[in-house]
Amino acid sequence: MRRNNRKAVVLLSGGLDSATVLAIAKKQGFRCYALTIGYNQRHKIELEKAQAVSQDIGVYEHKIMDVDLSAFGHSALTDNIDVPKNKKVEDISKNIPITYVPARNTVFLSLALAWAEVLGAWDVFIGVNALDYSGYPDCREEFIEAFEHMAKFATKAGVEGGNFKIHTPLLHMNKAQIILKGVQLGVRYKLTHSCYDPHHDGQPCGFCDSCLLRKKGFEEAGLTDPALDS
Amino acid sequence: MRRNNRKAVVLLSGGLDSATVLAIAKKQGFRCYALTIGYNQRHKIELEKAQAVSQDIGVYEHKIMDVDLSAFGHSALTDNIDVPKNKKVEDISKNIPITYVPARNTVFLSLALAWAEVLGAWDVFIGVNALDYSGYPDCREEFIEAFEHMAKFATKAGVEGGNFKIHTPLLHMNKAQIILKGVQLGVRYKLTHSCYDPHHDGQPCGFCDSCLLRKKGFEEAGLTDPALDS
Repeated sequence: MRRNNRKAVVLLSGGLDSATVLAIAKKQGFRCYALTIGYNQRHKIELEKAQAVSQDIGVYEHKIMDVDLSAFGHSALTDNIDVPKNKKVEDISKNIPITYVPARNTVFLSLALAWAEVLGAWDVFIGVNALDYSGYPDCREEFIEAFEHMAKFATKAGVEGGNFKIHTPLLHMNKAQIILKGVQLGVRYKLTHSCYDPHHDGQPCGFCDSCLLRKKGFEEAGLTDPALDS
Repeated sequence: MRRNNRKAVVLLSGGLDSATVLAIAKKQGFRCYALTIGYNQRHKIELEKAQAVSQDIGVYEHKIMDVDLSAFGHSALTDNIDVPKNKKVEDISKNIPITYVPARNTVFLSLALAWAEVLGAWDVFIGVNALDYSGYPDCREEFIEAFEHMAKFATKAGVEGGNFKIHTPLLHMNKAQIILKGVQLGVRYKLTHSCYDPHHDGQPCGFCDSCLLRKKGFEEAGLTDPALDS
């Protein structure tokens, strides 16, 4: 599985999915450069969590960059808009909810691409998932493929003949499978944060889409969420 | 030419090209939202110039966003690397120079896309040019087409059936044609800044690729550069 210690940029949010992705990238033998974006999200606590996760799993370098997407507004994750709660879990992926942040993954992948090009890396990892997810358009395979295609034309490295690969190891896994994979790789989910609308003390609300999907995942995996177990 | 006052996001750097693009977008009847990115560029003076240009031409709103691309480094525009000077002007577009900022236009267009989606706009303008340019890969038509394709999959608006258009009115114009077009539209080039490596007082160096292309453009247009005429 080792790939000669090639460099990879791993987008790391501090959530369950991206922590698992980082562990997978390391397991595959990549030298990992973690990139976390502070976009003035409501759940800023995830930036601290990202730091804890990157230290725990171990990365070559971790950058936290600020891009204030709240300047554009129009999302419950950055604006003063109520985060929807208590949906039926089977309905969560059906529509694009108000927690969608316009073009967020495009911005994140663009920054990851910039860093990858500087590092001389061809590999970028992102924890998108199209099964147990919030229905965001920029978590789908079609988007990732279109971004990968674009990246070739966007960069000096691409023009010179290289091909960037956007790795999405979680794309077709459900949340329980993701958790079981992470546990197998030693991910300490206690360090992660998934909630879109945490209480002031950082505790998850328990009822937003992200909390509900996480809860369902741990239940289906037959495990207790260690982040709640305190 | 009027298009019913539709909204457009216009990437505005404070340089000659993007000022012309803004004037063209306005002339086409778009309600313009100018977006300027502070990426910790060496020539920060362009941010002030962008403000002067947006006020002079007139926009509905102007946002200046910070994304510190110098955190990735590796470009003479953001790093402590000498800006190349005194090239033969006919050689400038032949190679990708050290002033190339990795994935810069991808990052800029991603942010423009985010704002466009929030505004309900389908139109984004960017002043890329593939004739009298610095040889950057992300100024070419292939890149713009690939980005436009990707944008459809990246966004809620795209998934719902819309198509974003990335307008590149300068793509096949030489610098003299751009200047003549701008003059015709009343662009005050005195307000613009092109130099990659300005002196401390903000005056252009006169010898970087961007200064040389600008100089050639004004000469071929048979005009004096008003930014130098003081």
